[in-house]
Amino acid sequence: MDRLKQFEEYRHRMNDRIAQIDHLGIKRFFNLDTNAYEDGPLSAKTKELLGLVASMVLRCNDCIDYHILQCVKAGWKDDELFDAFNVALVVSGSIIIPHLRHAVETLDKARERQING
Amino acid sequence: MDRLKQFEEYRHRMNDRIAQIDHLGIKRFFNLDTNAYEDGPLSAKTKELLGLVASMVLRCNDCIDYHILQCVKAGWKDDELFDAFNVALVVSGSIIIPHLRHAVETLDKARERQING
Amino acid sequence: MDRLKQFEEYRHRMNDRIAQIDHLGIKRFFNLDTNAYEDGPLSAKTKELLGLVASMVLRCNDCIDYHILQCVKAGWKDDELFDAFNVALVVSGSIIIPHLRHAVETLDKARERQING
Amino acid sequence: MDRLKQFEEYRHRMNDRIAQIDHLGIKRFFNLDTNAYEDGPLSAKTKELLGLVASMVLRCNDCIDYHILQCVKAGWKDDELFDAFNVALVVSGSIIIPHLRHAVETLDKARERQING
Amino acid sequence: MDRLKQFEEYRHRMNDRIAQIDHLGIKRFFNLDTNAYEDGPLSAKTKELLGLVASMVLRCNDCIDYHILQCVKAGWKDDELFDAFNVALVVSGSIIIPHLRHAVETLDKARERQING
Amino acid sequence: MDRLKQFEEYRHRMNDRIAQIDHLGIKRFFNLDTNAYEDGPLSAKTKELLGLVASMVLRCNDCIDYHILQCVKAGWKDDELFDAFNVALVVSGSIIIPHLRHAVETLDKARERQING
Repeated sequence: MDRLKQFEEYRHRMNDRIAQIDHLGIKRFFNLDTNAYEDGPLSAKTKELLGLVASMVLRCNDCIDYHILQCVKAGWKDDELFDAFNVALVVSGSIIIPHLRHAVETLDKARERQING
Repeated sequence: MDRLKQFEEYRHRMNDRIAQIDHLGIKRFFNLDTNAYEDGPLSAKTKELLGLVASMVLRCNDCIDYHILQCVKAGWKDDELFDAFNVALVVSGSIIIPHLRHAVETLDKARERQING
Repeated sequence: MDRLKQFEEYRHRMNDRIAQIDHLGIKRFFNLDTNAYEDGPLSAKTKELLGLVASMVLRCNDCIDYHILQCVKAGWKDDELFDAFNVALVVSGSIIIPHLRHAVETLDKARERQING
Repeated sequence: MDRLKQFEEYRHRMNDRIAQIDHLGIKRFFNLDTNAYEDGPLSAKTKELLGLVASMVLRCNDCIDYHILQCVKAGWKDDELFDAFNVALVVSGSIIIPHLRHAVETLDKARERQING
Repeated sequence: MDRLKQFEEYRHRMNDRIAQIDHLGIKRFFNLDTNAYEDGPLSAKTKELLGLVASMVLRCNDCIDYHILQCVKAGWKDDELFDAFNVALVVSGSIIIPHLRHAVETLDKARERQING
Repeated sequence: MDRLKQFEEYRHRMNDRIAQIDHLGIKRFFNLDTNAYEDGPLSAKTKELLGLVASMVLRCNDCIDYHILQCVKAGWKDDELFDAFNVALVVSGSIIIPHLRHAVETLDKARERQING
């Protein structure tokens, strides 16, 4: 199974498991998290880009994968995403280069998916 | 002297001092940093917002102050900035609440400045 | 005005200002944050100690001050708090020593307050 | 081999290798680390929970695995551990959700082990 | 394929892919990064050691692997590298122990390579 | 009182207070910390530079001040220290620029001290 599919399957399965725990605080946090990226004063599209850059500077590959898939769905183009990667790189420096590699690979995989439908 | 003026004065003075060091790598980094926020595939306005959210999740008050002043200049409105603060808060959690307080205070000061010309 | 009083006054004033922004996501986050430290499967007392250690390893002085005041209210004794400081110190290393100094100073101030009523 | 067994085997093997280096500072640090979680003014049980929350907010999966196994041994129940996870989630935000998934999976594996003896 | 070879192959392939993106800011950053470790007022050898300790305290395994290979090439001996590991361990605490294990394993693999030519 | 004197006075006073707590783990950690920078396979001079770069990439101003004073005592020259600052800047990016300003200011103050004896 390819890396993105594997990530999505694991994410889905474990989010279900966490929902099943039924801890009110945790459930509310997951709702807050979903709502934070919905249209508001800022568009959902803009907020996904904010989420992506935040994930890169904080160096979380799973978060990067999730937000790249969302950014692609939201209609961001490659050169725009590369420009956002550059902001993350300048802010957080060479320590995030491994995450930049990961992000570029994920973006390429996400584009293949779009082509292959 | 008010807090924002003091920050700007110190930032200006020390950036001059750093330029005077004349280390090629450091000088080039400062150029890269400036260029990262100029119009490109993403607008300068969008990139300032990315810089602001990155500064909040990484918890750097001076960086927050700088990017809020830039965001205000770029034309972002309060409700849009609050929506970006919310993304930062959900991504990085309560540990950034002190920086959220700081950001809101800075934004209020920046608006006073605009009114007082 | 002493440092703790100043912190509490600023925290109170800015939290009011943030509430006034009336951003639904931000308001809900603040509620979640409050609820996270209430009695549940773990006691409020235990959760304040968790909040304190989290604040120390993440190196946030305002968060440390807040949780020390809460821990003192919750009845934790000095030697217990020092033992928690030690866990934080071993986990996060010498980089948190400046925050350990701050924490010890805050704890001493909090005890003076108790004595002076 | 299952993920937890693999982690324990690797941890054990590399800790032995590190001991063999025979660097006095490193050896003493490992002793300090072990001692930090022993009964003192705070119980070993409480300190393992502190270690777990510190590991979550600092986003270290190996540290999370280690402290979950220790917390299970120390007698913490699932609902208590979920309550601690919630504190970590609120403190550090959505960036730790991948680590929350990992922690819940590890806890489930640790419980299976207990059942299967 | 062994872990180090795999890392080098992936690093090389993705750096090529990133170069192909042809984003001026990103390209310049990669140049700055390369130049930062060349002989200057500090020797390249010293700067590789700085890069290694920075990578350890910031907890980036790929960065650790890269700088260990560079440090070995630059002529640092095992006991010197262990002494640098100890500084990183004291600065950043037990949270980096998993990265210390990784670093020691990588160093052992790098020495095997030297022996096997 | 100047900023460096104030820092040294506070550091000294609070370290004394922490010693007085007499927690065995904390005392041993402080010893480990002192020993980590003494001559060994690496010279004390080299280790102070490692401590300085670690402090910069981890963004701790008090730690930066301490290690700059130590580096000056150990005989590092300005252009060497600037070269180390550059490594830290490239590794950790623009988020550490406020700490770079602080470091340069501290270094200038430390040199004035040397001149004024």
